[in-house]
Amino acid sequence: MPLGPPPIDAKPQDTLALALASDMAAVNVLIRERMASRYAPRIPQVTAHLVEAGGKRLRPLLTLAAARLCGYDGKHHIKLAATVEFIHTATLLHDDVVDESSQRRGRPTANLLWDNKSSVLVGDYLFSRSFQLMVETGSLRVMDILANASATIAEGEVLQLTAAQDLKTDEAIYLQVVRGKTAALFSAATEVGAVIAGVPEDQVRALFEYGDALGIAFQIADDLLDYGGSSAQIGKNTGDDFRERKVTLPVIRAYAAADAEGRAFWQRVIEKGQQQDGDLDHAMALLTKTGALNAARDEAFAWAQKARLALSAVPDHPLRQTLSDLTHYVVSRVS
Amino acid sequence: MPLGPPPIDAKPQDTLALALASDMAAVNVLIRERMASRYAPRIPQVTAHLVEAGGKRLRPLLTLAAARLCGYDGKHHIKLAATVEFIHTATLLHDDVVDESSQRRGRPTANLLWDNKSSVLVGDYLFSRSFQLMVETGSLRVMDILANASATIAEGEVLQLTAAQDLKTDEAIYLQVVRGKTAALFSAATEVGAVIAGVPEDQVRALFEYGDALGIAFQIADDLLDYGGSSAQIGKNTGDDFRERKVTLPVIRAYAAADAEGRAFWQRVIEKGQQQDGDLDHAMALLTKTGALNAARDEAFAWAQKARLALSAVPDHPLRQTLSDLTHYVVSRVS
Repeated sequence: MPLGPPPIDAKPQDTLALALASDMAAVNVLIRERMASRYAPRIPQVTAHLVEAGGKRLRPLLTLAAARLCGYDGKHHIKLAATVEFIHTATLLHDDVVDESSQRRGRPTANLLWDNKSSVLVGDYLFSRSFQLMVETGSLRVMDILANASATIAEGEVLQLTAAQDLKTDEAIYLQVVRGKTAALFSAATEVGAVIAGVPEDQVRALFEYGDALGIAFQIADDLLDYGGSSAQIGKNTGDDFRERKVTLPVIRAYAAADAEGRAFWQRVIEKGQQQDGDLDHAMALLTKTGALNAARDEAFAWAQKARLALSAVPDHPLRQTLSDLTHYVVSRVS
Repeated sequence: MPLGPPPIDAKPQDTLALALASDMAAVNVLIRERMASRYAPRIPQVTAHLVEAGGKRLRPLLTLAAARLCGYDGKHHIKLAATVEFIHTATLLHDDVVDESSQRRGRPTANLLWDNKSSVLVGDYLFSRSFQLMVETGSLRVMDILANASATIAEGEVLQLTAAQDLKTDEAIYLQVVRGKTAALFSAATEVGAVIAGVPEDQVRALFEYGDALGIAFQIADDLLDYGGSSAQIGKNTGDDFRERKVTLPVIRAYAAADAEGRAFWQRVIEKGQQQDGDLDHAMALLTKTGALNAARDEAFAWAQKARLALSAVPDHPLRQTLSDLTHYVVSRVS
């Protein structure tokens, strides 16, 4: 029996991983090589705990896919994919310290297994390693894109700190937080793939927009899952954002549509942080009643569609269809 | 009365600051411009707390001095000096989280005034800003040097985590920690000044070696001050390293020279962390009795001399004398 295409219900990220398996193997070799440290064995220990925890490697796959569908046949996309994964891993290490998380991808976090100190410093090491890798490509434009993405990530995280617990947070601020948390690295990942391939500017722009919209759709879906996904599904507990008093899109919409009693509830649990048993259930009832969950879901779907539309400007290639399928997949988690 | 040279007892870093005042003013303008954030006002608040705390700006002065004495008359040295100061500020923010410090330069630390989260994330933002600045110089070599320095800094900090509380730490490991804490950024600061000026390789190498040896002398002196400097003098409390059970050069030397009773003392206070009233005084008595303080002082002086010798290869210039004087100054704190 001849090998056919992957089964129709294969997840697009699995299809992507299959199509790019040999590139990804090279990325994994490079990651293991570069997470080593001549002097400090704790660095590869902490890094391996995260890097080898069975993450989806979505961001490096986006870089590889963008480069390949733009016809790139050099070697720099491997370095850039590893760069993107190192930046992502560094931000995860720092996020877990900032959020005081104890679980990620269904396993204890590095800050719990070692300590906050190790997470902060190993994160810094991985940031530095990512910069070393991007310098090796010799492309100033690539470095500019990734340095800008790093600044947007950090800025978005700081913004999230001050926006949390503040119901005046509006959708513009939320969007900036989302770009920092997710979309800035997605869009940099796809953009550098196009840049390194040397395609015309309209295609670079299209791949940037694809990554940006995909990332926003992904993060809105993630924020929705926090009010409805199961723990098993995403490896974190429903209600984390609620307990951390984060003002995500569902809350923004529910608060805007709330009556006096609803506003008083949100002010108590989010702004004053006076949470008690049953509040999460009540929050979910309000999110449903005000239509906030549906509205946020529609917003995620609209960004997914925007990502698909951006792909019309990029070359016809089997990977283009997979990237298109991926836009459906990231929001299917909440449909 | 004509303006004469600075008084004979002027501190070399003041002479440096005076000679480079107009460059340094441009660096300060750039720092204030780039520490801004369109979205997150907490970023410039936290950064300003540190940047404007009256630090000596020694690292950016080293970059400016190296570039000028190599005859550079472009503008990139301003960006590089700001880059170096941003890297330094980012590491200070992260260090204070890691060390759980409450005081720096005689003022409360950012992690105390705001929180650890802000210090971690604003530090990340400044790292990213530093990379944006260095990319703007367009020099791959400069980026390579600074990315490598950043990796050495983070690696040294992780190494210090595991080396603390471990009396098996030897002088080779200590030296690597010292390079990470101090010398890697000093040597990168002077090296990039020479590189941007385009001087021959032997002069680039000489300025790298000057910065490396100056940084090591500086850090050994700092570690000595922790067992003898006054609080007012360095803005931190004598005995901090002792309480944090850091294995610095004086302790390494004292432990190596200790009798059975001395070894038991160091094992108790450093490895087991069982410290009680009077232990710091006893430690200082042992450091004196074993000659460890004098030996560490000699080591600092030897590195200062190595730094001076390196300068023989660089162009004759008034700044060269000031850099030479600086090597005396950094160790004069312990003479």
